[in-house]
Parts: sequence; C-alpha cells; structure tokens
Amino acid sequence: MNREQLFEQIKKKNSFLCVGLDTDIDKIPEFLKAKDDPLFEFNKQIIDATAKFTIAYKPNLAFYESVGAKGLLALEKTASYIRSNYPDIFIIADAKRGDIGNTSKMYAKAFFENMDFDAVTVAPYMGEDSVTPFLGYKDKWVILLGLTSNIGADDFQFVGTPPLYSQVIKKAQFWASPDELMFVAGATRATMLKEIRTLAPDNFILVPGVGAQGGSLAEVARYGMNATCGLLVNLSRAIIYADSTENFAEVAMIKAQETQKEMQQLLEDLLPKV
Amino acid sequence: MNREQLFEQIKKKNSFLCVGLDTDIDKIPEFLKAKDDPLFEFNKQIIDATAKFTIAYKPNLAFYESVGAKGLLALEKTASYIRSNYPDIFIIADAKRGDIGNTSKMYAKAFFENMDFDAVTVAPYMGEDSVTPFLGYKDKWVILLGLTSNIGADDFQFVGTPPLYSQVIKKAQFWASPDELMFVAGATRATMLKEIRTLAPDNFILVPGVGAQGGSLAEVARYGMNATCGLLVNLSRAIIYADSTENFAEVAMIKAQETQKEMQQLLEDLLPKV
Repeated sequence: MNREQLFEQIKKKNSFLCVGLDTDIDKIPEFLKAKDDPLFEFNKQIIDATAKFTIAYKPNLAFYESVGAKGLLALEKTASYIRSNYPDIFIIADAKRGDIGNTSKMYAKAFFENMDFDAVTVAPYMGEDSVTPFLGYKDKWVILLGLTSNIGADDFQFVGTPPLYSQVIKKAQFWASPDELMFVAGATRATMLKEIRTLAPDNFILVPGVGAQGGSLAEVARYGMNATCGLLVNLSRAIIYADSTENFAEVAMIKAQETQKEMQQLLEDLLPKV
Repeated sequence: MNREQLFEQIKKKNSFLCVGLDTDIDKIPEFLKAKDDPLFEFNKQIIDATAKFTIAYKPNLAFYESVGAKGLLALEKTASYIRSNYPDIFIIADAKRGDIGNTSKMYAKAFFENMDFDAVTVAPYMGEDSVTPFLGYKDKWVILLGLTSNIGADDFQFVGTPPLYSQVIKKAQFWASPDELMFVAGATRATMLKEIRTLAPDNFILVPGVGAQGGSLAEVARYGMNATCGLLVNLSRAIIYADSTENFAEVAMIKAQETQKEMQQLLEDLLPKV
C-alpha cells in the first residue's frame, strides 16, 4: 500500500487506528484454547470485529515466536487472512529487526516475500546497511525506531547533541523517502512529537503507548498530525484484552469504535480543510 | 552453561570458536535439497563434523525465519540436536531482539524456555527494560550489541561523548554481572577491542567479522583476550560454505580445525600461565 492509498483509507474510515495483535496464549479467553489454532482463532475474531474501524493491524512477532513453529503458522495465517478479507488494511510486522546486510535481507524476505506484510519495524542501532535491505520493495515500508514509548528510551536515545533519536530520524531520511519510511515515536512522550514532526514533516509516525502504557490520544494528534494525518496510533491490550469472556470480540469492537469516534473528531478538528 | 564451564571447555578444546549457522536454503549443497528438512540436515552434518573444534554454535534467526514455520522447526531441531548430542556446547540464538518489557519477556520465553538456547543477542536501542527480561534465567546469557562489525556501525554507535557503544557497554554492567552478560564487538575494528576490554574487563565478547567480513583472528586475540580467554570468535560463511559439494562437511571440519589450531597457538601465547 502506498502513501496516498493509506491517507485515502484514513479519510474513508475517519480513523488512524492500528490494532496491535499482541496475541498471548495465556491471555486469550479460556474457551478458545480448545480450538486447533487458538492464536489464529482469536485474531480472526478480533479482526472481523474491528476491521471497520481500523487502518492497520500490527502483529507483534514475539508473541507468535514464544509458542514456536505453530505460532509462526498462526502469524502467517493471520497476515494472509487480513490480506484476503480486508485488502485495504495495512499490515505491520512488529519485529524490531536489524542486522548486517545479508541477514537483514533474509528478514526482508521473510516479511515481504514469504508473508505479505506492508511494513516491518526496524531497530536503527546497526545503521544504514542494516536498514536498506528492507527498502526498495514496491509499496513496502520500513518503520524505524525513533523515540520509543518505554522508560528505557532514556538510557540511550538521548545520548549526544542533538540526541540520538533525532540523529536517527534525520539521517534515515537520506536513505529513504517518506513513501517507504515511517518512524516509531511513543505516545508517552507526546509533547516531543512536535519536535519529531519538525524533523520529519512528511513521514508517517507509528505511535505506540496510548492505552495500557498511558499516552494521550488527543495530545498525540495535536502534536503529531500533519496535512495528510501522518499518524498511525496503535492500541493493543486496551482493545484486544478489554474483555476475557465469550464477548471479547464484541467488546473489542466497542473499544475500537470508541477510539475511531475520538479519532474522527480529531481529524475534523486538526486536518486542514480542503 | 555458566562462565566457569565455558572457560573449562575453551581450555579442554583449545579453542574459542563459535560456528555461525547462517543456513541459507539457496546456499546449501544441491543434493541436500531433496531431503525432508534440508536446513536441519545441513546443520546436523556441519555440527557432527565441527563439534570437536567448536565451543559454541550460533544459528542466525533470519535464515530460519526466511523460510517460514518450517524454518523455525529446523531451528528447534538444530538446538535440540546440539543439546542432546553435544551437551557441553554453548548455543547462541543470534536474534538481535529488544522491545518493551512485556514483549522482550516473550522473546526470552521463546529462546530460553521453549528452546533451550544458552544465550540470545539483544539490541540495546530501547534500553534497560528491553534487556532485563532476558536476565535472571539460571546460566542463560544476554549478548548485547556493543560495536558491530558492519559499516553502518559508524552511523550511530559513535554518537555522543563518550560514544554510544561505550555508554552501552558501561551502563549495561549495572544491569547484569559478567556471569550473564556478554557483548558483541566486531573483528573488523579489532584494535578497538583494546578499549572495549578496558570498559568490560571480565565480560565475554562475541566477535563476528573474522572470515567473510575480513577481520583478523590474531588481532582479535591480541587486543581482546583476558585471563579467562573472554572471547568467542564467530565464523560463519568461511566454515559452513567453504565447499558446496558432497564434501561440504569434511571441508567445514578442515576449516574449523585450522581455525582451532590457530586459536590454540593464540591461547598458548596470550593466556596467563597457571
């Protein structure tokens, strides 16, 4: 999916919601555990319930890898289910990969060729040749860690002058255009989105940290939105684990819809009128 | 495996060789591709041929993930084959993971509970709470990226004063003792190992970059060795792809033995006599 198509979807659905599929075998409703493939079954029901309000899904690789090969199968089935049934939804592999060139190339193959993800999150520590193997796939994206939402972001992301996260955001724009490069910036530091938006005026920003981690959606929108929205705000636990009974999908739908309504208002208030 | 046991193995085998199992379905000998599980079959033969000269094996996750769920099965079988047949060999998941706490915890579960790896490589960008979930497993290790072997290391690892890589190496020692924390430092910058050894006098250092990437083993030993060796030097392509015929395992054995002989000499020359 390209940048224009992404913005089209945002306008069509009045939403910039990304639902994080952090599907934890220990947290899904008990009755699903008897199914053949409980992770996929959970995802399928969450997806069917929330797709109307959702621009992107973001499976978190760790949760699938933590149950071994069958987890990876559930991931593959999930990506393929979204692609087949909701072709206009953007799919992000939240993998935070990054390694020497020949290795990053293998990860790119995994996510962009074997599975049909639209984007993969990449960690910048190893620099340009660890990132570029993910680039050059038509309408596929790198989402590079900038300023993350966790406390540990303070350990290294502020090293240097200007701080590391801003050097990452500036330098990476020499490697790729805003048509294939997004950044991660956490909602827990929403006021800093203002500066990040200045550093990367045209790039989409994937914003985790609203919901369970405590960030404010209104602040994220106020400080981070650009003329084509430029935001994908992720909620995981606050939607997918809002309920743990047989009603989990319906409650997830209600939570997704609530978030979409709030987003619709923010888009109306903040997007330039055309 | 704990630190003393690791040094015991090094002394017993007169080697500090780590063989990287970057097993690429496109690079393994043609005749293996007809097997049920070509990746595992290749690994098994490489392992049986080289185990005598090898302290550690380091499967690189990207190569397994690039072929999907069957790749992860091959990885699981490989780790389990080493553990069952060569229980004194250290097994490293070269995964370069690192994410917010609840996610890193899932990766730790994947590598240390579901599979029985001794160590996992971790990227430091997200800081303390992305690293600590991998700690606290008895005799299991975090191998944290310090100064990597690729050209892209120049992009961000030298940001700040002192440079980022040295801040990573210093700060991480507040999180974990040398009994559960190693660092990655590339052989392509061997002279810098002297400084890194000063920053981390007691930690093991995993050194990629000898072989295909051009680093010198003798320099690595000269600048990086401490009183208990403190080095695991990785060779991947130079051993496992030294030959692409039916003799691949025998040639890998010869290459591993050559390297071990060189290492034996370096240990004799550089280890303090007791």
